[in-house]
Amino acid sequence: MQGTGQAAPQADYAPTDRTVPTRAPQRASYDRETVHAILDEGYLCHLGFVRDGAPVVLPTLYGRVGERLYVHGSTGSRPLRMTGAADPGLPVCLTVTHVDGLVLARSAFHHSINYRSVVVHGVAHEVTDPEERRVALDAIVDQVVPGRSADSRPANRKELAATAVIRLDLEEVSAKARTGGVGDEPEDLTLPYWAGVVPVQKTYAAPLADPDLAPGTELPGYLTELTK
Amino acid sequence: MQGTGQAAPQADYAPTDRTVPTRAPQRASYDRETVHAILDEGYLCHLGFVRDGAPVVLPTLYGRVGERLYVHGSTGSRPLRMTGAADPGLPVCLTVTHVDGLVLARSAFHHSINYRSVVVHGVAHEVTDPEERRVALDAIVDQVVPGRSADSRPANRKELAATAVIRLDLEEVSAKARTGGVGDEPEDLTLPYWAGVVPVQKTYAAPLADPDLAPGTELPGYLTELTK
Repeated sequence: MQGTGQAAPQADYAPTDRTVPTRAPQRASYDRETVHAILDEGYLCHLGFVRDGAPVVLPTLYGRVGERLYVHGSTGSRPLRMTGAADPGLPVCLTVTHVDGLVLARSAFHHSINYRSVVVHGVAHEVTDPEERRVALDAIVDQVVPGRSADSRPANRKELAATAVIRLDLEEVSAKARTGGVGDEPEDLTLPYWAGVVPVQKTYAAPLADPDLAPGTELPGYLTELTK
Repeated sequence: MQGTGQAAPQADYAPTDRTVPTRAPQRASYDRETVHAILDEGYLCHLGFVRDGAPVVLPTLYGRVGERLYVHGSTGSRPLRMTGAADPGLPVCLTVTHVDGLVLARSAFHHSINYRSVVVHGVAHEVTDPEERRVALDAIVDQVVPGRSADSRPANRKELAATAVIRLDLEEVSAKARTGGVGDEPEDLTLPYWAGVVPVQKTYAAPLADPDLAPGTELPGYLTELTK
């Protein structure tokens, strides 16, 4: 990464006790490119943290910049209030999942889904450096629609003051995936039930322009590309 | 619910300290039908729990039966090992999220997504009653493809012994949604940036039949319906 002061990463993330699954370990991967590809295909994560001893899981947007993930929120929101720079940080688990297919086996037991997921464990810290905050907020917008941050009005002082940004480094990370067809037992192959995979796709419909668009405002190329 | 011993539910879930959001409270709902509709449209949740004091968030399938959610897993998996009937149960947070649209405002600050989510807080317990386990496992299969459990081979004794089922009652529950168009500041409306909503859709592609289907096995009607 240029300009972010990050060292060149190793090829793989080092597995740890909590990133090695207790079952189906062959589905786990610590490959950096695999992890980045899964993260880059999404923009919504499920962020888990502990409040009063109990787990909380909230959906939120994220952005990746090299080996750092950023999420943002109102400075008044509960999870972000717990991550001031003066604090030791907030232990979190950030998970991103893509569903690729429904796996319908002849046996109920072997039903499954094809999916790709990334689970990141770590301690989130509030970002206070103005330049890093700017990079992070652009990344979160561009994660949803690449190229969009440069084609919108940047946050002003008041908006920046209302926005908390937290960072989670990609260190304790694993990807997990199921791909391929059904895994029925050999003795079930003659059963008369249909079996196979139903592919799941995420698609975009035609963009709905705001009724108050300034005259002459055209649909930008990055949206034509996204929704074609 | 017939046959599950559940009392007729009240119209709304009672809000609690942790189901009332600290921001955008107008987006929250405790309406039972709204919650059920969001849950019934999905089949994948993100399940959070606490392990060694730190949060863990894993994607997993679920099924709804009345006011109960069920998830299953290998009896050897870590979260389920902590929920034996002898235990006090496992505090969890189960979250289901649907993305409906990308909200592109003129200002970077007002970018958002349209979504619907349900967050369930509670204590999960292992299900040991054989009949409730059967109902739960059918529900998890039918949550993915309605009608499928009746058109597959039921789990045998060995498969049942390898499967843990846990239950989470719908008691401390909220839904949250963002709908509608962009929320730009009035003074930004003349800016020359495109603004609007890009609808996000989840679709199915044509089912891919297993190459070893028994001769004469046709695509079932519930799949024709799902993927048309």
